[in-house]
Amino acid sequence: MMPTSTRVPHRVFGTASSGNCHKVRLTLDVLHLPYRWHEIDIMKGETRTPEYLAMNPNGQVPLLQIDDHTWLAESNAILCYLADGTHLWPGDRLQRARALQWMFFEQNTHEPNIAGARFARAYLKQPDHPRLPVLMERGYKALDVMEQHLVRLPFFAGEFSIADISLFAYTHKAIEGGFDLTAYPAVRAWVARCLTQPGMSAMPAP
Amino acid sequence: MMPTSTRVPHRVFGTASSGNCHKVRLTLDVLHLPYRWHEIDIMKGETRTPEYLAMNPNGQVPLLQIDDHTWLAESNAILCYLADGTHLWPGDRLQRARALQWMFFEQNTHEPNIAGARFARAYLKQPDHPRLPVLMERGYKALDVMEQHLVRLPFFAGEFSIADISLFAYTHKAIEGGFDLTAYPAVRAWVARCLTQPGMSAMPAP
Repeated sequence: MMPTSTRVPHRVFGTASSGNCHKVRLTLDVLHLPYRWHEIDIMKGETRTPEYLAMNPNGQVPLLQIDDHTWLAESNAILCYLADGTHLWPGDRLQRARALQWMFFEQNTHEPNIAGARFARAYLKQPDHPRLPVLMERGYKALDVMEQHLVRLPFFAGEFSIADISLFAYTHKAIEGGFDLTAYPAVRAWVARCLTQPGMSAMPAP
Repeated sequence: MMPTSTRVPHRVFGTASSGNCHKVRLTLDVLHLPYRWHEIDIMKGETRTPEYLAMNPNGQVPLLQIDDHTWLAESNAILCYLADGTHLWPGDRLQRARALQWMFFEQNTHEPNIAGARFARAYLKQPDHPRLPVLMERGYKALDVMEQHLVRLPFFAGEFSIADISLFAYTHKAIEGGFDLTAYPAVRAWVARCLTQPGMSAMPAP
């Protein structure tokens, strides 16, 4: 590894109170990688400008700038890129696939519902949003699946990995989406366990 | 590599007309890996039985059985597991992350809308389903992003990879969700290009 002083800092375009962005910050912090954070206000349309869309045609944060002409989108793909070759990315083929299983679960089953409910309540300020009942029902089902895993194992793919960082992001702030974790003791213990890992921190409020 | 005759066939629990399952079949076929396919009827609740939930607590297909006590869920994680170390999984760190970027895009932006619209029309037979307008709008936005990429590059991550197999699954049957690909010439050319790869095939109708 090169000495820290000669490493070029990563550039991240992100929103501090977004779980998808916070997981990128956490991975950089856990790995002690230097970075420059460019704060983006999605509520002011800063991901819809021509300049931003030229970097990420899908118009989302976070975005990792790799060089003057290269950007990487999708939070969990950024985590895989940063963690490649480190202790956060399992060396074993099955454990690596297991980490990815939970990261795809996070994006298709967990985040759309738990982050979706948080967005409706904390960003849109719409506690009567018509989608909230189905988001809550599906979010609790995702938490059920996590609880079942965490009563048996301390982390999602063997040792602490990017799969934990990915699922931690919106789970530790699930209350902001209206979720009550009282009935999920294993999830709550895992959140506390994640926070004891060096470099881990809670996400700022919206 | 061991001779084919001594390799234990993979066991797949899947639904032949599901894009998420078809992508697993395609990856096995492209890699010439032997497998046994266990057909699951999701419309008859076969993913909700206690026996199935013991294998996959999230109650979804596809599911890859690795040994008597080990299963791997999430279609794209199964693709990564099967392709690990083969020509379908980029050897370069950035291209590997690029493949994952498109596979996460597939799961959070593409599949929920394009497969969601197909499910409403072709499985539920509800062409007036209340979610269809928003699924169609978001599905076309996903196709826009793909078109922008494919006017510049022949595949999603350098050479033909599991990122293409993942996005091919529901894109080549987008018409069953009511999507018209006339305005997407680069997407249509890429679908045709994917079908020329040895082992690739179209998905059966629902």
